Amino acid sequence: MKLSQIGEFGLIDRLNRQIISATEKRWESSQELIIGIGDDAAVWKPRNPFQIITTDALVEGVHFSLKTSTWKELGWKSVAVNLSDIAAMGGVPMYALVSLGLPKDILVENIQSFYEGMLAATKKFEVVIIGGDTVGSPLVVVSVTLIGHASNDEGKVLTRSAAKPGDKVAVTGYLGASSAGLTMLNRGLKFPSKAATELRRAHLHPNPRVVEGQKLVASGVKAGMDISDGLVGDLTHICEMSHVGALINVDLVPVSPTADKYFGEKALEFALGGGEDYELLFTAPARVTQRVKKSMDCPVTVIGEITSEHPGKVALVNSSGVVINLKKRGWDAFKK
Amino acid sequence: MKLSQIGEFGLIDRLNRQIISATEKRWESSQELIIGIGDDAAVWKPRNPFQIITTDALVEGVHFSLKTSTWKELGWKSVAVNLSDIAAMGGVPMYALVSLGLPKDILVENIQSFYEGMLAATKKFEVVIIGGDTVGSPLVVVSVTLIGHASNDEGKVLTRSAAKPGDKVAVTGYLGASSAGLTMLNRGLKFPSKAATELRRAHLHPNPRVVEGQKLVASGVKAGMDISDGLVGDLTHICEMSHVGALINVDLVPVSPTADKYFGEKALEFALGGGEDYELLFTAPARVTQRVKKSMDCPVTVIGEITSEHPGKVALVNSSGVVINLKKRGWDAFKK
Repeated sequence: MKLSQIGEFGLIDRLNRQIISATEKRWESSQELIIGIGDDAAVWKPRNPFQIITTDALVEGVHFSLKTSTWKELGWKSVAVNLSDIAAMGGVPMYALVSLGLPKDILVENIQSFYEGMLAATKKFEVVIIGGDTVGSPLVVVSVTLIGHASNDEGKVLTRSAAKPGDKVAVTGYLGASSAGLTMLNRGLKFPSKAATELRRAHLHPNPRVVEGQKLVASGVKAGMDISDGLVGDLTHICEMSHVGALINVDLVPVSPTADKYFGEKALEFALGGGEDYELLFTAPARVTQRVKKSMDCPVTVIGEITSEHPGKVALVNSSGVVINLKKRGWDAFKK
Repeated sequence: MKLSQIGEFGLIDRLNRQIISATEKRWESSQELIIGIGDDAAVWKPRNPFQIITTDALVEGVHFSLKTSTWKELGWKSVAVNLSDIAAMGGVPMYALVSLGLPKDILVENIQSFYEGMLAATKKFEVVIIGGDTVGSPLVVVSVTLIGHASNDEGKVLTRSAAKPGDKVAVTGYLGASSAGLTMLNRGLKFPSKAATELRRAHLHPNPRVVEGQKLVASGVKAGMDISDGLVGDLTHICEMSHVGALINVDLVPVSPTADKYFGEKALEFALGGGEDYELLFTAPARVTQRVKKSMDCPVTVIGEITSEHPGKVALVNSSGVVINLKKRGWDAFKK
């Protein structure tokens, strides 16, 4: 059935029922959500004195292709990239708003699959969809807003501006699998099933490090962000906002073993500049990174350190001390 | 200068400076805004126990045309339509997030004009832009999220579900000028300068009824919304969510005198079904609407009443009791 057959309010009615049925328990038990979907705006009672908010947009043909992504994967990712921004602050996600631009000839079933993907992510991370906007658009555009709060009553969060010279630079998990997955999908490369699934999931079904972000704050980490534009580009943002430099040993960067196996040398480029891994990048004194390593279930790897020299710049060397030049240092939405 | 020449981070840097310089005083004096633009997410301390949030998207070619709208007008309107949703709850707007999709070949000056328009609206209504996302897109897409709070500590707001049989139905201001303006712009109609300016502003520079919404709540009104899809369509939403009917006397509807003068009979259709007037539509017992009239600086007109019959339906009659059939009852984003 096409969207034009049921119209805007037919769609909203279906989606609202889908959302409410998927979140019923949390919905009813929430004393804090006063008005959810269906009114002009949503109303909630904050449970923590420090509220956090972020928004991220995905545009068809720019951030995703429905030739390589299923609607369900797109739904998951739209929520996951925003959860990752809450994770990047060490916060607790609570509520989501979904702004959706859709062509008239789209199948209603596809929109419902999209919402299934979103609701899988909101369920896993205990988020409730409380509002949004559904509009006509020649191409699919998704803009999700996520509200959360600090994981402590003192308002301690991770920021990009708190890195200090002498801090170690560290990352969670492995890098490069998302770019490897994107390359595999775009070029139609054939890999063994297990590897293909892993790379596809890395790109289309990323797992935001929500719990890990909270643990970083609890361990005393002050500076951090998520890796969305690429390790070097994102670390550059920290260096600019903290007025410090960084020196990274590329041989220490935890490249995804699967990306490495199937893409060889290219895998390091993916890890350094590819982006969309949604791992956490943070800086802290050595004793704090030691504490972090013990508290985490995922790998935590120190890859370099923060310097007072060359503020705003990231320098790359290898273990032999040779300076490495990277062609693509990160994603830029508008550079050709 | 084209956007592709300065890139994403060149643009973000310029816009952040533009935003901070336009809001500097409020920015610095705000003890409540902990982290504004520039980090992964924004952090604020709520000053009221009931927080309100809404989001609205505008898509090029669907909601606006850059042939008839200036960039500055588009910026104003993008914020104003969201302010109107906060007004529709009787809330106090506080913070905005701006998600912007832009083609690479766009002129940076145009984006700055767009922000000028947004910042004019945020200044007038004392809102601070605290975050957003800037992405590549084949067409211009704007999605604004607005955060506010209840205008009282008890969490009293206007909702669509609180209309009761016997309530009077009333609207603020005049209706139909926005649709008249849209028609004038689309058809290139020539009117005397004063009328042309008024109709253009009604469509491209709407004035959200923020103070009026707060006054409605203070006067004891419980049911209300803003008129964005059209009077009849929007009143139908109230009827559906309140499980009531409504009977409207079309002869009482306050049609914009300018729309009436230049569009004749068509002006009533604009007023009933045209939408985008961003006036407030509310229902309340007669004694409350009397109180409202006294407290407001703008016109407040009773146009009908809420009934227990035909729940979810809006019936239209004229002063002679003749039933009126309206072809277009409101805007639907997906119906052809």
